[in-house]
Amino acid sequence: MVRTIELTFQTKGHTDILDITDQVARAVSASGLKEGLATVFTPSSTSGVTTLEYESGAIADLRRTLEEIAPANRDYQHNLKWGDGNGSAHLRAALMGPSITAPVVSGQLALGTWQQIIFVDFDNRPRRRTVIVQLVGEQEQDVA
Amino acid sequence: MVRTIELTFQTKGHTDILDITDQVARAVSASGLKEGLATVFTPSSTSGVTTLEYESGAIADLRRTLEEIAPANRDYQHNLKWGDGNGSAHLRAALMGPSITAPVVSGQLALGTWQQIIFVDFDNRPRRRTVIVQLVGEQEQDVA
Amino acid sequence: MVRTIELTFQTKGHTDILDITDQVARAVSASGLKEGLATVFTPSSTSGVTTLEYESGAIADLRRTLEEIAPANRDYQHNLKWGDGNGSAHLRAALMGPSITAPVVSGQLALGTWQQIIFVDFDNRPRRRTVIVQLVGEQEQDVA
Repeated sequence: MVRTIELTFQTKGHTDILDITDQVARAVSASGLKEGLATVFTPSSTSGVTTLEYESGAIADLRRTLEEIAPANRDYQHNLKWGDGNGSAHLRAALMGPSITAPVVSGQLALGTWQQIIFVDFDNRPRRRTVIVQLVGEQEQDVA
Repeated sequence: MVRTIELTFQTKGHTDILDITDQVARAVSASGLKEGLATVFTPSSTSGVTTLEYESGAIADLRRTLEEIAPANRDYQHNLKWGDGNGSAHLRAALMGPSITAPVVSGQLALGTWQQIIFVDFDNRPRRRTVIVQLVGEQEQDVA
Repeated sequence: MVRTIELTFQTKGHTDILDITDQVARAVSASGLKEGLATVFTPSSTSGVTTLEYESGAIADLRRTLEEIAPANRDYQHNLKWGDGNGSAHLRAALMGPSITAPVVSGQLALGTWQQIIFVDFDNRPRRRTVIVQLVGEQEQDVA
């Protein structure tokens, strides 16, 4: 089976870090996927997807380190050319990457206890965002 | 269905950033994949794959930030041991990662409007490179 | 076919970098997967998976650069809140990412000659770790 689900979120931009684990888990449950891959992909060049222990300390630390790697207020060629001021967002997105792929085992996302799937909006303004979840594998009846 | 396609490119090395979106999209079209995953993987430890808005500003900015994270001219244990001078290439490759996985939806790569798939050659010389595209999912006739 | 295999390792923590290529390759061989995807995923928020030329020079260089990006001894909000002292581990894990997906072609992992799959334990103590390998694709008999 292959199933494609779109999740939508309102973000605040400016490296807003959202925990999207529950929405992904609900998509897995609704699909009936028993064993297979869950790919979470952001169709955007100013946002990223990874995993993190989603608690306020680690969130603040990640924001600080991303600001050090690609500061929001710096001269960027992208900004000089396009004037949209989100040059650092493009860098952070390219370095974090647009997707993760997690296994589904016995119908559940095989995440660690303290591990959440996060969507990070690096753009410099609030955005309405869509993330694609694609599930590939065996359904309940296929393996019964 | 599973389909494996090899793409080859000539690069200039030295963090040469290539837009390979069209070649990947053509591989998807030729395969007849309707819904499923497209994994783009570089079988090399001195190159990487991610997504980026492929325009000269963001390209220059990404090259600068990668140079700051792992400068080309620095003392590396790898270089002391092997004398090939590409120690920074190994670091950049490990940090960027060797692959992305993007969903194919209705026969099309589900990329954002300003989002391209890039192959980055970090090695310190021009290279002939091969990238593997693997497509896993349902073909047109499977879902009809 | 979908096959899920758990690999377990003893680590030393403190950005211990392990070459897990052989174990992943053995899982592929044992499964009979001919063509398809091998996803290697760590169900943890203080470890990561990527590829690297696994030799002592590149290993030392990667450890140095990760220490520069997210130093072990620094004030982290995570540590202030939880007192477990592994704030840098969470950052390194989120930036490296929890998984890679590599193609299997003709029954073999399609890695480069000098490219190994590494598991990196960023936590600040030795750990017993489990990594999930999930294989999705066509088995020998499916394609015969």
